[in-house]
Amino acid sequence: MTDKTDNTDWLDAIKWNEDGLIPAIAQDVHSQRILMVAWMNREALQLTVAESRAIYWSRSRNRLWRKGEESGHVQRLHELRLDCDADVVTLQVEQLGGIACHTGRQSCFYRVYRDGAWHSVDPVLKDPARIYEAPHE
Amino acid sequence: MTDKTDNTDWLDAIKWNEDGLIPAIAQDVHSQRILMVAWMNREALQLTVAESRAIYWSRSRNRLWRKGEESGHVQRLHELRLDCDADVVTLQVEQLGGIACHTGRQSCFYRVYRDGAWHSVDPVLKDPARIYEAPHE
Repeated sequence: MTDKTDNTDWLDAIKWNEDGLIPAIAQDVHSQRILMVAWMNREALQLTVAESRAIYWSRSRNRLWRKGEESGHVQRLHELRLDCDADVVTLQVEQLGGIACHTGRQSCFYRVYRDGAWHSVDPVLKDPARIYEAPHE
Repeated sequence: MTDKTDNTDWLDAIKWNEDGLIPAIAQDVHSQRILMVAWMNREALQLTVAESRAIYWSRSRNRLWRKGEESGHVQRLHELRLDCDADVVTLQVEQLGGIACHTGRQSCFYRVYRDGAWHSVDPVLKDPARIYEAPHE
């Protein structure tokens, strides 16, 4: 191994929460739209950099989640940033398939507040039932 | 009071965490840059809508934090969105003063990962010591 891969100072710099996680915000590198927020543990973040694709920690499944592993909707990493408190990261990603949300929409943030209620304003681009039967990319 | 202000269904729809909080991502309405992430409790979110400006819950100070109350760097609300899991909100904001970060930078996400390290790549626009002695707006 090289010095470069041995160096984990950049991971040690992060303030992981009590569960060893950090929120990760994925933003579309082209449109700058915020696509989704998920969690990463140390291994997930390290692998995200190593493989140049978003790899999260699924709290519900309690395992690494290579975004797109079932849907094909892989997120290719273009840039990774850390905030001033070292407790949130942002990822500029290229969203393969143009769909980040499990509901079949471009973004998970498809509900807008207006007049005392949340309104779904973005179209479903693909039926979720079809997303998860699709062959992997 | 009107029916509209009595209605809190939109707040009940949110999955607050065990501390009664939700992460809020502020994004610049003009540049679409992600400016910061902070927390809101129920009252903070309600007031954010009522006053059309970002009001967070400061976990360190354990009180409401009207963004800009000391710095003048108020965030005027343009749009509020909720994600599919109802546990993160995004705010499109107009950032007064052009500075969201307490370090005097436009965004809190001023560190980029490159070659095994975080690199500060964004300029300090105003000395933090001067930000917090400025008169309130």
